[in-house]
Order: sequence, then structure tokens, then C-alpha cells
Amino acid sequence: MPKLIRQDGFRQIIKVSNLLENENPTTAAKTTGLGIIELASVFENIRPDIVVTIADRYETMSAAIAASFMNIPLAHVQGGEVTGNIDEKVRHAVSKLADVHFVATAAARNRLISMGETPETIWHTGCPSIDLAIQVKNNTSMHFDYESCRSILPASQYLVVMQHPVTTENGFTKNQFCSLLSAIEALNVPTFWFTPNADYGAAQIFKEIQRYSEKSKNPKIHFLRNLYPEAFLRLIKHCACLVGNSSTGIREASLLGIPVVNIGSRQDGRERSYNVLDIDFDPDAIIDAVESQLNHGPYESSFLYGDGNAGIQIADLLARMKLSVNKQITY
Amino acid sequence: MPKLIRQDGFRQIIKVSNLLENENPTTAAKTTGLGIIELASVFENIRPDIVVTIADRYETMSAAIAASFMNIPLAHVQGGEVTGNIDEKVRHAVSKLADVHFVATAAARNRLISMGETPETIWHTGCPSIDLAIQVKNNTSMHFDYESCRSILPASQYLVVMQHPVTTENGFTKNQFCSLLSAIEALNVPTFWFTPNADYGAAQIFKEIQRYSEKSKNPKIHFLRNLYPEAFLRLIKHCACLVGNSSTGIREASLLGIPVVNIGSRQDGRERSYNVLDIDFDPDAIIDAVESQLNHGPYESSFLYGDGNAGIQIADLLARMKLSVNKQITY
Amino acid sequence: MPKLIRQDGFRQIIKVSNLLENENPTTAAKTTGLGIIELASVFENIRPDIVVTIADRYETMSAAIAASFMNIPLAHVQGGEVTGNIDEKVRHAVSKLADVHFVATAAARNRLISMGETPETIWHTGCPSIDLAIQVKNNTSMHFDYESCRSILPASQYLVVMQHPVTTENGFTKNQFCSLLSAIEALNVPTFWFTPNADYGAAQIFKEIQRYSEKSKNPKIHFLRNLYPEAFLRLIKHCACLVGNSSTGIREASLLGIPVVNIGSRQDGRERSYNVLDIDFDPDAIIDAVESQLNHGPYESSFLYGDGNAGIQIADLLARMKLSVNKQITY
Amino acid sequence: MPKLIRQDGFRQIIKVSNLLENENPTTAAKTTGLGIIELASVFENIRPDIVVTIADRYETMSAAIAASFMNIPLAHVQGGEVTGNIDEKVRHAVSKLADVHFVATAAARNRLISMGETPETIWHTGCPSIDLAIQVKNNTSMHFDYESCRSILPASQYLVVMQHPVTTENGFTKNQFCSLLSAIEALNVPTFWFTPNADYGAAQIFKEIQRYSEKSKNPKIHFLRNLYPEAFLRLIKHCACLVGNSSTGIREASLLGIPVVNIGSRQDGRERSYNVLDIDFDPDAIIDAVESQLNHGPYESSFLYGDGNAGIQIADLLARMKLSVNKQITY
Repeated sequence: MPKLIRQDGFRQIIKVSNLLENENPTTAAKTTGLGIIELASVFENIRPDIVVTIADRYETMSAAIAASFMNIPLAHVQGGEVTGNIDEKVRHAVSKLADVHFVATAAARNRLISMGETPETIWHTGCPSIDLAIQVKNNTSMHFDYESCRSILPASQYLVVMQHPVTTENGFTKNQFCSLLSAIEALNVPTFWFTPNADYGAAQIFKEIQRYSEKSKNPKIHFLRNLYPEAFLRLIKHCACLVGNSSTGIREASLLGIPVVNIGSRQDGRERSYNVLDIDFDPDAIIDAVESQLNHGPYESSFLYGDGNAGIQIADLLARMKLSVNKQITY
Repeated sequence: MPKLIRQDGFRQIIKVSNLLENENPTTAAKTTGLGIIELASVFENIRPDIVVTIADRYETMSAAIAASFMNIPLAHVQGGEVTGNIDEKVRHAVSKLADVHFVATAAARNRLISMGETPETIWHTGCPSIDLAIQVKNNTSMHFDYESCRSILPASQYLVVMQHPVTTENGFTKNQFCSLLSAIEALNVPTFWFTPNADYGAAQIFKEIQRYSEKSKNPKIHFLRNLYPEAFLRLIKHCACLVGNSSTGIREASLLGIPVVNIGSRQDGRERSYNVLDIDFDPDAIIDAVESQLNHGPYESSFLYGDGNAGIQIADLLARMKLSVNKQITY
Repeated sequence: MPKLIRQDGFRQIIKVSNLLENENPTTAAKTTGLGIIELASVFENIRPDIVVTIADRYETMSAAIAASFMNIPLAHVQGGEVTGNIDEKVRHAVSKLADVHFVATAAARNRLISMGETPETIWHTGCPSIDLAIQVKNNTSMHFDYESCRSILPASQYLVVMQHPVTTENGFTKNQFCSLLSAIEALNVPTFWFTPNADYGAAQIFKEIQRYSEKSKNPKIHFLRNLYPEAFLRLIKHCACLVGNSSTGIREASLLGIPVVNIGSRQDGRERSYNVLDIDFDPDAIIDAVESQLNHGPYESSFLYGDGNAGIQIADLLARMKLSVNKQITY
Repeated sequence: MPKLIRQDGFRQIIKVSNLLENENPTTAAKTTGLGIIELASVFENIRPDIVVTIADRYETMSAAIAASFMNIPLAHVQGGEVTGNIDEKVRHAVSKLADVHFVATAAARNRLISMGETPETIWHTGCPSIDLAIQVKNNTSMHFDYESCRSILPASQYLVVMQHPVTTENGFTKNQFCSLLSAIEALNVPTFWFTPNADYGAAQIFKEIQRYSEKSKNPKIHFLRNLYPEAFLRLIKHCACLVGNSSTGIREASLLGIPVVNIGSRQDGRERSYNVLDIDFDPDAIIDAVESQLNHGPYESSFLYGDGNAGIQIADLLARMKLSVNKQITY
């Protein structure tokens, strides 16, 4: 990742070590605490004018607390959205610590205003994750990056699966994975399946993937760990249907017009476009939904989460705005 | 303090070491981070049904993050109030992490509802700090605890000063202290002056107190560090006027009917009763305000912050309520 | 692992989270520091009569520092041996913090005496790792645990490879792995190859293993991650030759009489028996040495590192000895 | 202190926050652990060629562990000496982690050689603490810095008391202080008494000092917290007798020829010159010893701990030497 950051022109990159092994609720808390200790050292050394943090994860919270206790103005990207889980709590808590907000949707802006944030501190810039998606969408001259997909030729029609564990449904993680797997097997379409992020429960999914890989070696299912963002988006852009519970289905896929089958509660509450079909963790329902989406084919692009200028707008606003660490709820 | 907690009947008391020396914004952040690491260990060992945290300080945030990341239901006391400073940010952020709220005032309850908290999770119990104040107020048979005031006889009329540094006005801490000190000297009334809490800036005040003590040894000003809660409240109950920027002036003093001169921005936004006179850090204004309050004398008791049953109500509700860690903003 | 500890009869098991992801020299230091913070909490809660720590790894140092600063008697197992690397430094530093020593060999005892440790605090008990090896050696009625070797039938003759990265030779890790791999391929004997422990450099080896596995899938080389201790020792007991730089070649293999080819500097300085052939990371030298050991066949058992009663002796001594935290160098 | 460091010409000064409040054995361990985490961040940022650490305290250990795990050459000053307590353990453990040693005495060098350190890595430079003492001793034209002694005129004859708590004799700290205090009162000579360092037990001494100050206000005893090093050494240089258990009595006082009464076990084992009279914590013995030293008067200077060039020699050697992190015990 430092390589990608460097490609974007950043020169002073500081690595922070705060991620504890064996992800579980206790290590999640300690990772957050250690992140504060580490980031406080970094902030003391580089004395930033502002700290920018995004979304709703451990490190978001660590950065938000270190900055706000150290009287450094805090900007938060992707606030005001709704989901479930610990993400929901962290996102809104970070909004209450932040001095300036860059939101993805008009509804998110209204929600922050309802929460008591000062309207003048909330900027509806769209989501920066859409910026690259639009470049990938428009740049028709560039070819699909076969190499970065591990030299596996995608079939004329293929699925992409992205399923993360739901931390508050930890007892169901294995069942959910197995339901989805049996549906995908039954569909019998070439599939790129991404292994989950480091959330609590991911270890169970990895274990199931390994067990499955050793046993069946279904040649139609390719498990992938990570792709570079552009390669990843090209894989999404050309897929026939995106299946699972990733926010990619809600955000980037709506812009790319990709049919999405969103399963379970993880994206509950998040605004979505017409391309998303919501269902439960039931194999038959999954099969029906995917087949329905395959029949439908691509959707119109939706600009719900942005028009591709979020990054530039945010950078421009940060450069010009007057920064302050004093805030008070508006009511 | 363990002694007081044991007197209240608690048997399993675990001490946590997280407070770093040399309070400043960086150590404040690190103290919070270390507190998360330490409390996560404690929570893992004792597996609490619920974690209860109060107000808006470092350790409040540490407890809130450890509990919420560990999927332990979190109850927050004193949410929904308004002040300024980092306290304001921390208090509302903790509310967004909390699963249940015990608030001091009706306005605080309404504010949490506006912020998107589910009304059924918000209980207007009053503030537990009022509980002991009412006992002190009513129990006329108990005599003033001279001993715990270091055997110094209070004069027939005396002031109490409680002034904390304002973390976002750190450059003014010394001036603010000196303004207040010159006003108190000019008033020439016996005064009990409490040294500040461990917030950033306290070291400056301690230094000024020491310099002043070594130089002038004004026999009318007695600096005190800490009293046991009951002795403290008795000292407040009998004082002619409480001066400074402590929340005691807003909460306990309103119940006890004590005239209060509240100086500066620290309590901005907090609901207050008629007993509070708000002014700036100007020596003349302080003198005028204190004299005006001395002329006025005691006020009627206000029950704005509770009627003395908060602790019992909270305990009772905690024992009976159904606990959950799933929450979502109401809009 | 908690399961194994529980099988041994321990009832109060406390898990500690201190291992940071992305092993490198910086995270190694931080893992040690966090381990001290975590173990200090544990020691404060359970107030142990003594802390027992073993060998020379991060957690050894963490336990030693927490115990010694907290005035808890510290017993160290496997002190007084010689290797290279950070292990060498950590081992002797821990000896200087320890109040009582349980050593594996007579030479280790003499070395600790030379280092200034009080002779009465040094007990030559042998190494506990030998205890299980002797049980595995003698228990001829039990059959090889095929199942725990992932159902892969060992050939009539097979090798075991255990190669760890050498932290101070980090630049050579990949080359060393490749030299060894080319030698093993050339030997063309069925081989169980264990992936390395979490030392700095392990990630490079994992990467090479993965690359190799994806490319060639040599059916004669089986990569294994971990086996239960008894299954592991049975696999060693029946192997024709143990190759690499693991201490298993020095300790357990000498007791089991297994021919060992020890490569490189990692075990430099450690006492060894006749079963060990020392060579450098040169493919031809490795091939020659393994062939020579295959021709030689099993060796006589050596009791250099213990006679199988270390654990019982240590437990018995700990139960009876007078504990103290006062020590002074003898000269 | 940053001011003093800056005066010495250092430009890049990084502050580290690791000291936990409420010193006790548990916080001592955690302070050490947090120090490792903090110093590892610093070392990663500035990539030092070598880390130099001194003596035997928490931060010595933190620096030693961070450097050695990070493969940064470690130099240790004041190794090879003997005392008691945790200091004794820490000092020798740090020696086993260090790659190069700058020792104060010939005996210390021999001891490190006996401990198995390579002779070529041990340099007998003398102790840097003596360097400033010699400047103070020789510079007769400079006058005693009355101002920095808080404007209190020293009498023609005065004592200096420096007594630290002994961590392994924690139960006796108060008694030891009281014995010493009653002896000093009986002696009835003007006395400058330094408050102790932050070791475990210091809080008890502070409490006793406060109690005594509030009660008796003996005008002959002045409690001092800290002086700048030069002012401190001038105060020592002119004192009639140094009393207590500080290493200053062993080191700087021997060079300055000051009579010393060393009480109790804290300096047991440390080499000393003729100026030191060793006794126990008995008021009568203390009185007799001080009177005997007052009768004797100043001693000849001893150069046991150095001849005033330690700092320059160490700097010169560090600049020229070949650095390595590979070491192995010599036997």
C-alpha cells in the first residue's frame, strides 16, 4: 500500500503498527487503543494542520480520538450514513468528534444536520471511492488487467462474490458462508470470490474457504485475496453480477451499473440505487436473485454516491477552509 | 477512593493504571488509548453484563470504546448536556456509542432524541451527583466536618473557589487565574480555593498557586486539594458564594441554593437555575458579581438536575432492563 | 493451545493479546512492550508466588521484566545456553533478571555460574522438551498418527525440514530458502516441510513457499504448519533425516537418535550430540550431508539435554523452594 | 530538561511520554513496557546509528530492549557495577543486551569480562557524572549559586541529605525516613534535604515530608526538589557532610572529597573511596557517624570513578568505532 500512496504523490509516509493478531472483540478494542497511542506520537512529530479520517473502522476511531484530544482539527469522510453493527456506532461517534464533514449523499448531509452538526461544516462532495470508479467506467481504451487477476481468464460471464462477517451475528458466520457457497455452486457460473477483511469472524470464513479448497477444488470458483484498486474495479465493471454484503455493491456498483445481490443485514440502512436486490441468507433465494439479475443485465449508472470529483473537491476545500476545533451541538 | 467504593458495598474492585504524567494534549490522547487497552483486559476477565460510564472525560471514552468494540452493552450517565471544549465532543461521541442513557434533565433527553437515539433507551433519572447533595441538604443533625477541612475554622461567611483550566484556551490559563486571584484578594473574604483537576493546563495553575503561597501567604485564602464527597458538599452547603467555572456550581449548588458566580466559557451551554450569575474573566466584574450574590444570600432549591433518586432508579433499571448492543440511528 | 494446557490440568488460563501483525524488528520491540503491559495486569490480578518463563523469545522477556519490576520471584528454564542473534542477548538478559534457573545441561549450569549467578539458585534438571520425546521414544505400542499428518501417507523413508529465518541475516532469507529447496528437490525423497515460526523474515519464506506451491506442486514435498506436540514428535521419530536449523535437531532429535543436517549459523554455539552434521547453505553440501546421514541411519540416543524428568523435577523444586527476589552478582 | 539538552548543542530532541502516575511495582513495569512502544516509534523514525543508554532505570531497560530487538547497536554506560534491588538486575540484564560498554571503573570492566562480554567491546572511560564535578571542583573563580538554592543562605557549615526509598524494603521506608529525620534534628546543623526520585516508595517519603513541614517548620531543614546540575554540585562541593543513600555520595562526592555517611543497603556492593562511612538506619549511629565526619573534614580527591574526560572519550569512541549487533558470550 505505501507504493500506491507514493504513486499519488505523497512523500512523507509514516507507518504505524497497531494491529493485534487474532482478531476478536478484545483485540479490536486494544488495536484501537494502541492506534491512539501510536497516532498521538505521529501527530506530535508532524504537527498536522488537519487530520482526515474516513468511514467507520478501528483506525478511523483511533485517528479521531488522537486528533480531537490533541486539539487538531478533524475532517471526516463518509459520515452521516446508516448501517448496523459496531460500524454504525463508530461512524456517528466520529461525526461527533469531527470538526468538518465531507459526505457522500444529500441524505447523509441532512442526517448530520439532524444530529446537531453545524450545516456550514458539512460538505456534500460525493464519496471519493466513486472517483476511481468513474475513471474505470469511462476509460474504454484500457483493457482488462488479466495479469493482476492471476492470469485466470474470466469467462464471458462471471460473478464476483464479496462477503464479510457480521460482527454481531458471529454465531452465524459459518452458516451464512455455507448458504452462499451452496448457492454459488448450484449456479455453476465462473466466480471470483474475495476473501473477507480482518473483521471479527473472518478467521471462520478463511477456515471454511481452506477446507473447501482442499476438498473440492471446484475449477469454477477462484478465491482472491486483494487486487490493486484499478484492477479490482475493472473486474467489477465486467462482472455479470456482484453477490454478497460488501459496500462495493452499494457504492461503486451503482455507478458502474452492475447488478447486485445484497445478502443479509450488513448494508441495512444504507441508501441504494435500483441495481441492488436485497435478500436473506437462503440458498434458494440467492439462486433466484442472481438468476434474475443475470437476466436483467447492466443497469443505468446512478450518481447517488458522487459524480467523480469528491477527491478534488475535498482537497480544494481543505486547502481553503478556516480550521477550528471549537464546536457545539446546534440545539 | 477504593475505600469509598468499598464503603458502598462493592467487593470486586480492579485498579487500572492508565494515567500518564505531565498532562498535555498528547498525554491526554495516550492516556485514553492506554485506558482502552487496560479496560479491555478487565472486561475480558470479568465479562460484565453491562458497562456504566459517566460524563465526558478520558476514562469515559476509554470505557465506551472498550465496551462497544467488545459487544458489551454500554450505559451512559449525564449524556445529552451541552458545554464546550473537548468535553462537548467526548460526551456526544459517547452517546453515539451507548446503548442506554440515564440523563439528568428533560432537555438532555430531548436532545438525545434529536440526535437520533431511540427514545425507549433514554431514561430521565436525574443526575446521581444530586443524590448525595440532597442527603447533605436535609440531614440537619450532622455537623460540619471541620476535621476534614484541615481543622481550619470557616469564618461566619466564606467563599469557595473552583476554577479549572479551559483546554482550548490554554494560552489564557495564567491570566484567568490571576484575574480571579486579584478579585478574591480585593474581596477580602475568607476563601477555600480548590486546586484544579488533572486537565491540560492544571500544571500552570499549580505553579501560580505555589508561587503565590510562597510569596504572600494571605491568611484568608486556604488552598485545598480534595475532600471526601460528603465533607466537600458540607463545605459548599455553608458557603456564602461559589466562584469559578466548576460544574458543581451548576449542579449541586442549584440544589443547595448556593449563590454562584460562573466565570468564562467552560459551562457555556449547560442548563442552569436562577442561582447562577454568568460573567467574564474580569476582576471588576468578578468583584461586583460576588458582592451582588453575597447581598442576595441563599436561593430556593432547584430540582433541575434531579430529586435525589437517580442512583436508585439507575440501579433498578439496570437490574430489570433487557440489554442489547444493536442500535441504529432513528432517522 | 488452551486445549493442551487444559489437558495438563491447569484450570485458570488467562489469554494475553500482545502480538502485533506484520512481524518486523519494530513490531517485535512493540510486541515485547505490550506484553509487559498486559502481563503486569495479569500478575496484579492473580498475584502469583512465582513466574516461570522459558527460553529466549519476546514473551520470555516480557514476562521476565514484568515479574522482576513487580518483585515477583522469576524462574527461568533453558538459561545458560549459547546461540547467536537476538535470542542470545535475550536469553542471557533474562538470566540476569531471574532468581532461579532450571538448566538443560551441565555446561549451561557452569556458564550461569561464570556469569555470576549464585550456584544454589541453578538447578540442572534437563530440558522439559525432552520429557515428551522420551515418552514418544519408549511407547512402542502406539502407532504413527497418520491422521494428524493430514492423511498423507509417509513413504517408507522420508525427510523432515524445519528452517527458520535468521533475523540478523534477513537479506539472505530468500536465498537460504531457495538453496535448501533446490537441494531437497534434487534429493527426490518424500519430505514434510514445516513452515517457519513468526520470527522476522518468516513472511519471505511463506511467500516463497506459496509461489513454489502454486507453480510446481511437487507431490513429494508436503508443507505443514503445525502439529500437536505428540504427533510432531512421532513424525520426527520415524523420519530418516531432519534437515534445517531448528533447535529440534539439537534437542529432541539427539534423544530420539535421528540423523540431523544442521544448516547455517542459527544453532551456532549450542551443545550438540553426534547425530548432528553442521554445514552451510550450499545446495551441494546439503545434498551430500543428507545422503551421508541417510547412509548412516539412526544414532544412539543421547541424554545431553535431559533424561525425561525435567518437568517433574522443576514442579517439585518450585513447590519446595524458598523464594526471594533479592540477588546480587557473585563477584 | 530539554533546555539543558539544547544547551549542550543537540538540535533534534524528541519527547517521549511513558511515565505512568502513582508509582508502584505495577506501574513501574507498565512504564517500562510503554517506554519500549514509544522508543520503538522514535527509533523507527530517526533510524539511529547507535542507541546510548545509561545506568539501570526503567527507561534504560526500555531503550535497551527497543534497540536490541530492532537490531540497532546498543551502548551502555555505567555497566559492571554492583548494588542491590531491581537496579542490580536491570543493570546486568542491560549489559547482556548491549553491544558496547563504557564503564566507570577498572573493577567494572573486569566484572563485565567475567560475565562473558568481549573485552574489546568494553571501554574504561570513567563515569560521565564525574566530568562536571571536576569542572565544578577546579573552577574556583565561580561563586556559589545562591539564587538557585532558592535564596537561602547556607550557613558556614551545612549538611546535604539525599535519601531514596529502597524498593525491596518498601515496608521500612517510613521508619527509615523517620530514623534519619530524628538524627538530623538532633544534630541541629543547617541541612538541605532533597526529596527522592520517582522510585516506588517515594510517595511515602513525600507524605512524611509534607506532614513534617506542616507541623514543625524547623527553620534549619530546607527541603529541595531539584537543582540544575551545576548548582547542585556546588551545593555538594561546599557541604560539610553528605548523608543518605544516594550514589552521589559514592561518585561525585569521592571526587570532591566530601565526607559521606552512607546509610543502609542501597549502595551495597558499589566500589567506594575513603570518604564514605557506612552505617545502618539507626539514629544514634547516624549522629555518631555525621559528627565523626564533621570532625574529620574534607578528604583527598579520589579518581576512582573517572578523571573528567569520560564524555569526550565516549563521544570520540562512538564516532570512530565499528558498530555491530552480533555478539555471543565468550565462554
